[in-house]
Amino acid sequence: MNIDGRHYRTIWLGADGWSVEVIDQTRLPHRFETVTLRSVDDAARAILTMQVRGAPLIGATAAYGLALAMRTDPSDASLEKNVAFLASQRPTAVNLRWALEDMRRVLAPLPPSSRAAVSYARAVELCDEDVETCRRIGEHGLALIHEIAARKAPGERVNILTHCNAGWLACVDWGTATAPIYMAHDAGVPVHVWVDETRPRNQGASLTAFELGAHRIPHTIIVDNAGGHYMQHGAVDLCIVGTDRVTRNGDVANKIGTYLKALAARDNGVPFYVALPHSTIDWRLDDGRKIEIEERSADEVLKMNGRLADGVVATVDIAAPGSPAANPAFDVTPARLVTGFITERGVCPASEAGLASLYPEAGQSG
Amino acid sequence: MNIDGRHYRTIWLGADGWSVEVIDQTRLPHRFETVTLRSVDDAARAILTMQVRGAPLIGATAAYGLALAMRTDPSDASLEKNVAFLASQRPTAVNLRWALEDMRRVLAPLPPSSRAAVSYARAVELCDEDVETCRRIGEHGLALIHEIAARKAPGERVNILTHCNAGWLACVDWGTATAPIYMAHDAGVPVHVWVDETRPRNQGASLTAFELGAHRIPHTIIVDNAGGHYMQHGAVDLCIVGTDRVTRNGDVANKIGTYLKALAARDNGVPFYVALPHSTIDWRLDDGRKIEIEERSADEVLKMNGRLADGVVATVDIAAPGSPAANPAFDVTPARLVTGFITERGVCPASEAGLASLYPEAGQSG
Repeated sequence: MNIDGRHYRTIWLGADGWSVEVIDQTRLPHRFETVTLRSVDDAARAILTMQVRGAPLIGATAAYGLALAMRTDPSDASLEKNVAFLASQRPTAVNLRWALEDMRRVLAPLPPSSRAAVSYARAVELCDEDVETCRRIGEHGLALIHEIAARKAPGERVNILTHCNAGWLACVDWGTATAPIYMAHDAGVPVHVWVDETRPRNQGASLTAFELGAHRIPHTIIVDNAGGHYMQHGAVDLCIVGTDRVTRNGDVANKIGTYLKALAARDNGVPFYVALPHSTIDWRLDDGRKIEIEERSADEVLKMNGRLADGVVATVDIAAPGSPAANPAFDVTPARLVTGFITERGVCPASEAGLASLYPEAGQSG
Repeated sequence: MNIDGRHYRTIWLGADGWSVEVIDQTRLPHRFETVTLRSVDDAARAILTMQVRGAPLIGATAAYGLALAMRTDPSDASLEKNVAFLASQRPTAVNLRWALEDMRRVLAPLPPSSRAAVSYARAVELCDEDVETCRRIGEHGLALIHEIAARKAPGERVNILTHCNAGWLACVDWGTATAPIYMAHDAGVPVHVWVDETRPRNQGASLTAFELGAHRIPHTIIVDNAGGHYMQHGAVDLCIVGTDRVTRNGDVANKIGTYLKALAARDNGVPFYVALPHSTIDWRLDDGRKIEIEERSADEVLKMNGRLADGVVATVDIAAPGSPAANPAFDVTPARLVTGFITERGVCPASEAGLASLYPEAGQSG
């Protein structure tokens, strides 16, 4: 999507033909800076420190990270070691493992001498595939937005609530949850987005609001506490969120707090959709409660980054001194609370049968 | 309760015998400072800017504010004007109106010359009554905590989740939701409190964590998004929150986000109690949806106060520049989601019949 009129993806090959450029998402929305990844260690650090985040983008970065590793040591031992190393950076998003397994499947049969070139080519392919996947998710989600708009008076806005950032910054382009929103806006449907702030890392207030603003989509930042209130008052027509992992029975791991919004949507008859590419489905797990939930640093809860009056970015301590904090990064929304999945192959119920109807080949293999 | 070993109330008469001292809660947890109120304008400003907040303390401050007004102009016109002026500072908490109506009922029949002295005496009485009311709420809530502790292994902690600050800082002493917690801790029951951060003003992270820490009660700050996850995992035995207004049918207006926690409690079979004094019950409304919900400044969402590394307290902009924000301060939890009310007269179901069983005299008059 565009920033200041220039088209960006979130990850691209550097001008030297081998280094990898990413947008440093820890600096947004205060600074727009890019980071150059020159080694597998750089790629791993970018994933761990969340310079890149979002399940699809984590997968893409891992693919490029493995290419960087193959460039310096394409041996079997290096391939195995670095797949495991990269996979260990974040535990919850299954796309990370999916992308690395794809890369290993392609690279393992090859002679080491050809692995570097092929790994770069495959990483580029994975990114292009992600863009196309998100575009298709957008088309299928757009139909849902059109349905809602058709029930409203002409010009009346469609209010969509989203949590965290499942936008183009979380992917390579378009986004998952945001792809239908971008398409609706571009098609002239009057959309307005309630952007959940998404504590503790504020991906909504800092990333989703940033990218929607850059694309001139009407939006309003609200604290995570407020979404239920707006649903009670008829101010939300539709919820669309992304996900870090969907189990074969339709349970949804996503940013902490997603579950609370799904409960409120159910209580108020608001449709609650989850947008995802096939790479986010974990066919090996049949229950969301089996998903490992990442526990992150208490500092994310106790401190906050922001711009001082003079524009300098600073970190402030916001809580009572000496108080401990806990910081689970994700929660699991049971399939029963999800109206449906928006995938690159269409919309389906959040159930094993629903997923199998769209992915018969994978459903069989699980 | 105690701060650094010294006992404080949240509001008290100054050494000069007429000014009023309050703890400036906008400075907590970064600074412990008191503010002297010398006029009704000072009192109104303290309420409006949330130097004092919490439904019972707002009522107490309004009572003292009216005493300050009577000191300079005890006329009928001044009485009426200042009751209306103070009542207009915050729309949602009914205690504000309740305290002012009590004061007017006492003062209106008196000759103006005696109103100043009587208004001070009545303000002191209201504060003392609030302390006694909270102490009784604590005793009734303590019985609920004892019941849970009795079902656990000896020494196993009772986990209580609370939202916002319905602590002694919200009242004159003890608190409403926290009174049972303080009493349980003092009685040797091992309690642990999950403290919802409570965006946007962070009353949980800054006030509840501060007062629990000062009393050495084990607690953990979590973002507002996390409570549902902990309930799903059996880590919450009981929710206790306060309220700004309860309608006669049992609906509960409280800090924005309370409704989401009540939904999660219901979904996971966790008891959800609301602690309140009788002054919080609005017998004139029969439906929580009729309660006016205060909309506060977008800056509360877009900016954050905190301590820089050198200890200086600063305000930082945390969101994407140019993004708008909305900031409803309260939401309404329907009575059907509330397990019960903990009042100074005992515990009752969250219903008109339940409230009438404890307050037969008021239930008749409504």
